[in-house]
Amino acid sequence: MNILVTNDDGIYSPGLRMLYSFVKDLGRVYVVAPETPKSASGLGITLHKPLRISKMELEGVQAYATSGTPSDTVYLAALEIVDRIDLVLSGINVGDNTSLQVILSSGTIGAAMQAALLGIPAFAFSVDVNEPEELLEDPALISAIRNVAKTAVKFVAEFGMPKGVDVISLNFPRRFRPGAVVKLAPAAKVKFSQRVDKRRDPRGGIYYWLYGELVKAEPGTDVYIVHEEGDIALTPLSLNMNVLGSRQEADGAALQKLVELLNRSIA
Amino acid sequence: MNILVTNDDGIYSPGLRMLYSFVKDLGRVYVVAPETPKSASGLGITLHKPLRISKMELEGVQAYATSGTPSDTVYLAALEIVDRIDLVLSGINVGDNTSLQVILSSGTIGAAMQAALLGIPAFAFSVDVNEPEELLEDPALISAIRNVAKTAVKFVAEFGMPKGVDVISLNFPRRFRPGAVVKLAPAAKVKFSQRVDKRRDPRGGIYYWLYGELVKAEPGTDVYIVHEEGDIALTPLSLNMNVLGSRQEADGAALQKLVELLNRSIA
Repeated sequence: MNILVTNDDGIYSPGLRMLYSFVKDLGRVYVVAPETPKSASGLGITLHKPLRISKMELEGVQAYATSGTPSDTVYLAALEIVDRIDLVLSGINVGDNTSLQVILSSGTIGAAMQAALLGIPAFAFSVDVNEPEELLEDPALISAIRNVAKTAVKFVAEFGMPKGVDVISLNFPRRFRPGAVVKLAPAAKVKFSQRVDKRRDPRGGIYYWLYGELVKAEPGTDVYIVHEEGDIALTPLSLNMNVLGSRQEADGAALQKLVELLNRSIA
Repeated sequence: MNILVTNDDGIYSPGLRMLYSFVKDLGRVYVVAPETPKSASGLGITLHKPLRISKMELEGVQAYATSGTPSDTVYLAALEIVDRIDLVLSGINVGDNTSLQVILSSGTIGAAMQAALLGIPAFAFSVDVNEPEELLEDPALISAIRNVAKTAVKFVAEFGMPKGVDVISLNFPRRFRPGAVVKLAPAAKVKFSQRVDKRRDPRGGIYYWLYGELVKAEPGTDVYIVHEEGDIALTPLSLNMNVLGSRQEADGAALQKLVELLNRSIA
C-alpha cells in the first residue's frame, strides 16, 4: 500500500514526523508537505503561479516540501511524486478540526478532501493543542494517536473505506485521560462565535485581528466530545454538499466496526 | 434589506460593479471585497496576520477593500462595516463554479458559505468566461444576469431562503442563447481531470503549473447544463458534510417556485 503523509502545518511540524513514524512500517510511505505552515487555507489551489518541489531529508527520511497549499501538495504528490496513492493521512494537526465551520476552512481536512476528489481514501488527524511542542508532551496521548493511526490504516488496507464516506476526521483531546474512548460523532455546525479585534498601529492606522470565541457545544457533536468529554471524535464526512439528489448512504456497520477496533487498540 | 455584495476577484473586477448595479435599488447595498484577486482561496481565513480595511470610491459608490480573503471579507463586513446583513451576493465571478471540485476551492462560493455559517442567506453568481472583459461583451447575457439577480433578491426578501438550503450557486454560460433557461441541478463531482505541467526555468530549475482538463460531464449536472446545453444552472448547496445524522430536507416547492420566477424574468 502506498501511503501519502501530508499536513497543513508544514514539513517541519512535529505532527508530520509523528504521523510518519506511526505508520512507516505499514506500507510504502511518502512524506510530501507544504514548506511553510498553511493553516486555514481550506481547499485553496494555486493556479496563478508556478509551484516548486524540494527534496529534503527529514530525520533520515526522504521527504518532499512544496511551495503550495495542502491541496496543491496532494496534487503534486499524486501526479508527480507517487505512482498510485492508496491512502492519504493528513496531520497531525496542531489544533482540533471540529465543527463544519472549522472543517470548511481547514487545510488539514482540505488535503484529505482533495484526496477524496481524486478517489483516494483519506483520514485527517488533529489534536486540541495550541503549540507544536504540546504534541510531544503527553506520552499516553501519543500512544493513543499511534494506535488509532495504525489501526485505521490496517482497517482500510483490509476492508477499504466505509461506503458513502469520503473523509474520516479524527480529533483528539489535549490530554489522554485514562478510559478515554473513540466516539462516532457528527460535526457541530459552528465552534466559534466570530470576533474581530480593532487596533491601532504605532502610526495611528487601524488594523484588525480575526479570532473566535468558543460557543457552547451541543452534546453528541465532535466539539462536545473533544472539548467537554475529553474523548476522541471520529467524524465521517462526505464531499457531497448537494441538496438535490440522494447521497449514498454510509455503511454504518463498517463505521461501527472501525470504532470498535480503534477502541480495542487504545484500551 | 441590507445586502452585502462581495467577490473573490477583487474590488476592481467588473463583475463586482455589475452585481452592485443590478441590485442597488433593492435595499441598502454595501460593497466590500478583497483588494486583490483571491481566486481558488476556498474558505481560507486569516488568523496569523492582521487585516486592513480601506474605504474607497468605486464609480461614485462608497466601497470597502480588505486585505483578506473572501471569507475574511465577509467577517469584516458582518462584524465591522454593516450592522446586520440580511443577504450576501457573491460575484459575479470570472469563470463558472460548477462541480463540487470547483465549489470546494472557490473563493466566490467560500464567501457565500461563510455567510451561511453566520446564518445569512447567500447567492453566488459565476459566468463561464476566462477574462473579466468578457463579462461585458454580451448584452443579452448581462440582461439575463441582471434579471436573475434582481428576481433572486426579491424572492429572498419575500419568502426567505428555501428551507434546507444554505447557499444557492448560479452558473451562467459564456453567451446567452435565445431560449436559454434556468435549470435546477446538482453539482457534478468533478469537472477537471487534474494535470501538472513540469517546466524548467532559465536557470535550469524545475517548476510546475497545476491545471485541469475538462472531463465529460454527466447530463443533468451543473457542468453539463452550463457547458453542453448553454443554460443557466441553479445549484442549491448545504454546508452539512456530515455523513451521520439526517440533513434537513430541502423545500423543493420553494426551489421550484424560485426557478419559475427566474425563468419568467429572463423569458
